[in-house]
Amino acid sequence: MPSHPTLRFTEGQPPQTAEDRLAPEEPLEIRVRSRPISVTMRTPGQDEDLAAGFLLTEGVIHSPSDIVKLETPRRPGGANLVNVFLRPGLQVDLERLTRHVFASSSCGLCGAATIDQVHKQFPPVTTALRVSTTTLLALPAHLTAAQPEFSATGGTHAAGLFSREGELLLLREDVGRHNAVDKVLGHALRHGPWPLVEQILLVSGRASFEIMQKALAARIALVCAVSAPSALAADFAERSGQTLVGFLRPGRLNVYAHPDRLLFG
Amino acid sequence: MPSHPTLRFTEGQPPQTAEDRLAPEEPLEIRVRSRPISVTMRTPGQDEDLAAGFLLTEGVIHSPSDIVKLETPRRPGGANLVNVFLRPGLQVDLERLTRHVFASSSCGLCGAATIDQVHKQFPPVTTALRVSTTTLLALPAHLTAAQPEFSATGGTHAAGLFSREGELLLLREDVGRHNAVDKVLGHALRHGPWPLVEQILLVSGRASFEIMQKALAARIALVCAVSAPSALAADFAERSGQTLVGFLRPGRLNVYAHPDRLLFG
Repeated sequence: MPSHPTLRFTEGQPPQTAEDRLAPEEPLEIRVRSRPISVTMRTPGQDEDLAAGFLLTEGVIHSPSDIVKLETPRRPGGANLVNVFLRPGLQVDLERLTRHVFASSSCGLCGAATIDQVHKQFPPVTTALRVSTTTLLALPAHLTAAQPEFSATGGTHAAGLFSREGELLLLREDVGRHNAVDKVLGHALRHGPWPLVEQILLVSGRASFEIMQKALAARIALVCAVSAPSALAADFAERSGQTLVGFLRPGRLNVYAHPDRLLFG
Repeated sequence: MPSHPTLRFTEGQPPQTAEDRLAPEEPLEIRVRSRPISVTMRTPGQDEDLAAGFLLTEGVIHSPSDIVKLETPRRPGGANLVNVFLRPGLQVDLERLTRHVFASSSCGLCGAATIDQVHKQFPPVTTALRVSTTTLLALPAHLTAAQPEFSATGGTHAAGLFSREGELLLLREDVGRHNAVDKVLGHALRHGPWPLVEQILLVSGRASFEIMQKALAARIALVCAVSAPSALAADFAERSGQTLVGFLRPGRLNVYAHPDRLLFG
């Protein structure tokens, strides 16, 4: 982890020099069929998972077998590059992907239309999953206990994947919250379990539209956030069949969509 | 502000229904010369400032006179669209902008190369600005006091622009931290003061590479964050002549680059 010369100042005292550990942040280029399709600022590590998760949540790939190979060139100081080799027959609209711009409809963009757009690629989820609130209330402590980067730097977001019994299966930290989620989903896609119909996703911060959309791409039906959801995240969850829990804190939680999956106790 | 049916649960008590106010989040399309160049998820409001700030920090425009007109079509329920009319002679590489992909060099991407890339468009800042730590330590309280959205929803990031004397000039809140900054910079670009060589930017969360890069585009030499900077943000500040203050909390702060602008007291 990079260490950085820092001046620490406390009111009434002279400033003191220190060496602070800061969260690493570097650009990662993802290439598909030799073509650069994305550059994202991320915390280096698990880059191939990140690439797989990104391609999944962007709708480029749909199953583990769509990826033939992920390759990180060996270079001094790290590569910051992942080459993705897709199944030869797979139809991919790379043009759409690199454009990063929705086709706008004549009636204009709106949140509801955006949800419809997502559902064309990722239909709503249905699952008989039931989880007790006792299980959910125990999750944040597991996440915090397993966050080495955040403990050291205070500079990363975390995403955790849990079993329905509340066991932590996977934790990823990143300077970008969407990257932390992509790394979790990409790892699950490549190494299982897959799809994530019986698992729980917990994010350390807020729940935005983007987080819910990524969860839906992996078929996750239960998303928890330590902080607030946005209005569009709540609407998205409602219409996507996802249970959305926010403000998951010691002894309390709020449910913004599909509370029927929870056993209150 | 949208209100959303919520189930609030506190351990040991039956769940209670409530109506929670959630942070609005909707897509905004920005069109330049009739061409869609970006869709961003943002909190509606000050959309024209957001568009102006986005174009500034992407290096498309460089001065207030580069924008001839900003137009938001009137539509029921809001437009979620801003049309930008640029000065006719202005050279713009819209292709580059919609690609959102850096040209990768043969030696690969890295943080240092990314900083060099930014400096080609936005050179480092030099200014005789000096600010006392007493002034800085008072800033977060001003920001918190003036955050109506966050108080109601807990779901937004804030960016504040302050005078060198610590007076709050402008505050914007948004579900996206980069949007809050773009709205502040876009407003300043359109209505002054401009450029922001004598002002201070404070963000409610963490300082990433992207935040520092946007600040540099507006010539801001003093950036403060309530939470941690990333390693690349600190390197960027160091090489860009920017003072970077992190963990700005009651009675204390850390300086990660160019402490010479601060008067410790």
